[in-house]
Amino acid sequence: MSDFQRTYDRLVAELREIALLGSVASVLGWDEQVLLPDKGRQLRAGQSGLIARLHHERFTSPRIGQMLAELESSGLMADPHGQFAVNVRQTRRSYDRAITLPAALVEQMTATEVHCQQAWVEARKKSDYGHFKPWLEKMLDLKRQEAQCYLSAAGHQPDRPTTLYDALLEGFEPGERADNLRRIFTELRSELVPLIEQVAGRPRPDSDPIPHRHFPRDQQEQFAREAAAKIGFDFEAGRLDVSAHPFCSGIGPGDVRLTTRYREDSFADAFFGVLHEAGHGLYHQGLPPEHFGTPCGAPVSLGIHESQSRMWENLVGRGRPFWRYFWPKAQERFGPALAGVSMEQWLIAIHRIQPSLIRVEADEATYNLHIILRFELEQALLHGDLPADDLPGEWNRRMKQDLGVDVPDDARGCLQDIHWSGGAIGYFPTYTLGNLYAAQFFEQANKDLGGLDEAFSRGDFTPLRNWLREKIHGQGKRFSARELARTITGRDLNAGPLMRHLRQVAQFGEV
Amino acid sequence: MSDFQRTYDRLVAELREIALLGSVASVLGWDEQVLLPDKGRQLRAGQSGLIARLHHERFTSPRIGQMLAELESSGLMADPHGQFAVNVRQTRRSYDRAITLPAALVEQMTATEVHCQQAWVEARKKSDYGHFKPWLEKMLDLKRQEAQCYLSAAGHQPDRPTTLYDALLEGFEPGERADNLRRIFTELRSELVPLIEQVAGRPRPDSDPIPHRHFPRDQQEQFAREAAAKIGFDFEAGRLDVSAHPFCSGIGPGDVRLTTRYREDSFADAFFGVLHEAGHGLYHQGLPPEHFGTPCGAPVSLGIHESQSRMWENLVGRGRPFWRYFWPKAQERFGPALAGVSMEQWLIAIHRIQPSLIRVEADEATYNLHIILRFELEQALLHGDLPADDLPGEWNRRMKQDLGVDVPDDARGCLQDIHWSGGAIGYFPTYTLGNLYAAQFFEQANKDLGGLDEAFSRGDFTPLRNWLREKIHGQGKRFSARELARTITGRDLNAGPLMRHLRQVAQFGEV
Repeated sequence: MSDFQRTYDRLVAELREIALLGSVASVLGWDEQVLLPDKGRQLRAGQSGLIARLHHERFTSPRIGQMLAELESSGLMADPHGQFAVNVRQTRRSYDRAITLPAALVEQMTATEVHCQQAWVEARKKSDYGHFKPWLEKMLDLKRQEAQCYLSAAGHQPDRPTTLYDALLEGFEPGERADNLRRIFTELRSELVPLIEQVAGRPRPDSDPIPHRHFPRDQQEQFAREAAAKIGFDFEAGRLDVSAHPFCSGIGPGDVRLTTRYREDSFADAFFGVLHEAGHGLYHQGLPPEHFGTPCGAPVSLGIHESQSRMWENLVGRGRPFWRYFWPKAQERFGPALAGVSMEQWLIAIHRIQPSLIRVEADEATYNLHIILRFELEQALLHGDLPADDLPGEWNRRMKQDLGVDVPDDARGCLQDIHWSGGAIGYFPTYTLGNLYAAQFFEQANKDLGGLDEAFSRGDFTPLRNWLREKIHGQGKRFSARELARTITGRDLNAGPLMRHLRQVAQFGEV
Repeated sequence: MSDFQRTYDRLVAELREIALLGSVASVLGWDEQVLLPDKGRQLRAGQSGLIARLHHERFTSPRIGQMLAELESSGLMADPHGQFAVNVRQTRRSYDRAITLPAALVEQMTATEVHCQQAWVEARKKSDYGHFKPWLEKMLDLKRQEAQCYLSAAGHQPDRPTTLYDALLEGFEPGERADNLRRIFTELRSELVPLIEQVAGRPRPDSDPIPHRHFPRDQQEQFAREAAAKIGFDFEAGRLDVSAHPFCSGIGPGDVRLTTRYREDSFADAFFGVLHEAGHGLYHQGLPPEHFGTPCGAPVSLGIHESQSRMWENLVGRGRPFWRYFWPKAQERFGPALAGVSMEQWLIAIHRIQPSLIRVEADEATYNLHIILRFELEQALLHGDLPADDLPGEWNRRMKQDLGVDVPDDARGCLQDIHWSGGAIGYFPTYTLGNLYAAQFFEQANKDLGGLDEAFSRGDFTPLRNWLREKIHGQGKRFSARELARTITGRDLNAGPLMRHLRQVAQFGEV
């Protein structure tokens, strides 16, 4: 065995143990959102803080840097997509970012996040932007410092980010750049706006075709479980529980947990929510367990992750073939609550396009306009082109311009999302990236496999799931998100496939 | 601030962080028994193993030893029951035990435990003692080595154990000795055996007065929650869930979790099970949170812990005053399932004394004979007076002699308990210690407070709970178990109070 191989094995063993610590943090985080008694919050903060510190100390240890430096000079790096090169290269990326931040800045950010989120919660409750503004400014200032650290330290990388925003975006979507996003988003918006206007101008029924009847929680849960299992989520290696904010936690191999929430006057929210989280869950369950703890066993990026959830939620889960199989099951399960509702009425209801105020309640089409607005505003805020003072005004102006919607108050305007209060700047675009990747991958899967509609109608989701597992899940971080699009679909990411899908969506309910 | 004070503060800070790691291990352990998906077991073993190793490394670090040595020479040790002396003395005890074992022995024990438990599971399934025997022998050999390490290293302690068995017992019941237990248990048995014979000779109804009807799981849970909350368990600082083997996990301040299991043909199992675990839970919830992580914030011993669970389960929870309050509620909740059953019939049913095969199903009286048998056999096994070959024969002989019961097979004989397969030798006596302490404390509480029966009948459990909190829960490890008995009741632990209680139990159902 060569010295390089021995060093590599030591690095992998060390990364595995660090990943185990990370997975412990995930258990604590999951439990906090799902089960933790109220009075246990202080203890949990202590536990999570300690594990996070141990994790950070281990990962930023100079030993890791020494092993990386040694391995980078090895001939084993020759194949850029081989296990060895991928793990060394990607670990280097994360390591350089992790060692860059001064401890004092990290501490300041952690403390500020807590206060900023508290201020946001109160500000939103009272719809009082003034209460949030000073904390947002403080947060933006710290994020600029953080980004500056990354920029100064990024000398190692050939394709290093060069703007503050890109330096932060890199943390969520490695290799992606605002310039590229702007190009794609501009193309998307130019086609999306007229489409939405056209749909909005159509005559439409006065009321929801699906009356708000009673859908018992237990029945909803059974139905959602059935669907998640059918698309391939393995409940022997995962769970479904309830939390205030639905999420998916990929704790590690054999333990992937979904959450949702139920409202008994409608089953669509929980149902599509579970399909969405199960899409994330399938990604986690499809990562190669033998590479656990190393980049080869980790998801590519938030955008690619979101492409998996959006594909199952929207492209598969709202499709007519899907409901050919599931509609009779829904009718059987919910009995009287769906009496007199036809499958076509249901399909119209779940494809309605209608500009609205709140991002998380938006339809598949207008959703992207909400994202593009946030993407542009957060860049302007970070780069100092938009003073925090002017955020509400600019937000409301853009909502009117892009979506034709009047914002009645800041709670339903620029205070609606938690992200900025937690310092997540550069996160929003990954949602629309998810939609774009999903559509482009799904179009390709249909080409590669053929007959997917027919298979879905029979309740057979195996061909698509296996295709995703082979092309995406099983690859870990072997390819970047951009490379993945090119490798799988032969084209760079572009707005074409998503627009083709949204035009189909717009056809539902045409009179 | 003196140097001693500074060192003490550093020690306490370090112990707190080690305790945080321990509490993370508790979360992982709780989750494993309650929620973990099957395929997540390997990952969980890795997570728990890592946290256990970090915990052990931190606690056995020479720094702790240096701080202890420094503090032991301080004048602050003068008051033996002051916070300072208690924390230093008790930490020294645990530290000396923890650093004693060679890493190789610990590894061997961990590996053997896994195999030994697997062998036990299979042996019990097939009622094949031969399959378990070689692993029991291996385990006994390792436990002898472990005990020998403690004996060699115990030089620091004035009251150090001097036999192999006492060295192990010390890990569960600090300060307790087999000689003392033998004395008390002999007294107990000499009065218990005739009492049981007398009851067994009485005419008794042919069938259970409580027919096995249908008690819906949800109703049982609601009822158990109501009772646990009524006796003072704080559900904002805890939970109740379901697991195969009921337990209570005191994760830390603000987070104490009970589990139970439900069978729908009877509500007694789950109900008394929850009262039992809630008794443990009240102890955890009553520990002083400001001392978290140090001996002043930790439970005294397993025996004292068990005294709390047994008190609420048996002395309070099976009493007539308790049911004066809860019987009408049970009738209301379970409706038809309790139709025609009187409170007196119910009381007779839950006080039935009847020798039987299985410890965990035994009544309050015969239970102690099961324990005494195990206490004597495990000493004989450990000290080499009983070859593992002869265990089944000796077990069955003793069951006949002590309880008048014929053992039909080893599955229902010497293979029924998990303890020895996990290396827990010296654990069993703490169950009967729990019964003894419970009775002695409860007698004293009645003397001190007066009118408890009347309060219970009104559903008021606050006086007893506050008494326990002040005298026991809030004291942490300030006093040893023996000192606690003397301090609270003015007497050494003795069989008198438990026998007085069991004679009352025997009176239920007298014709």
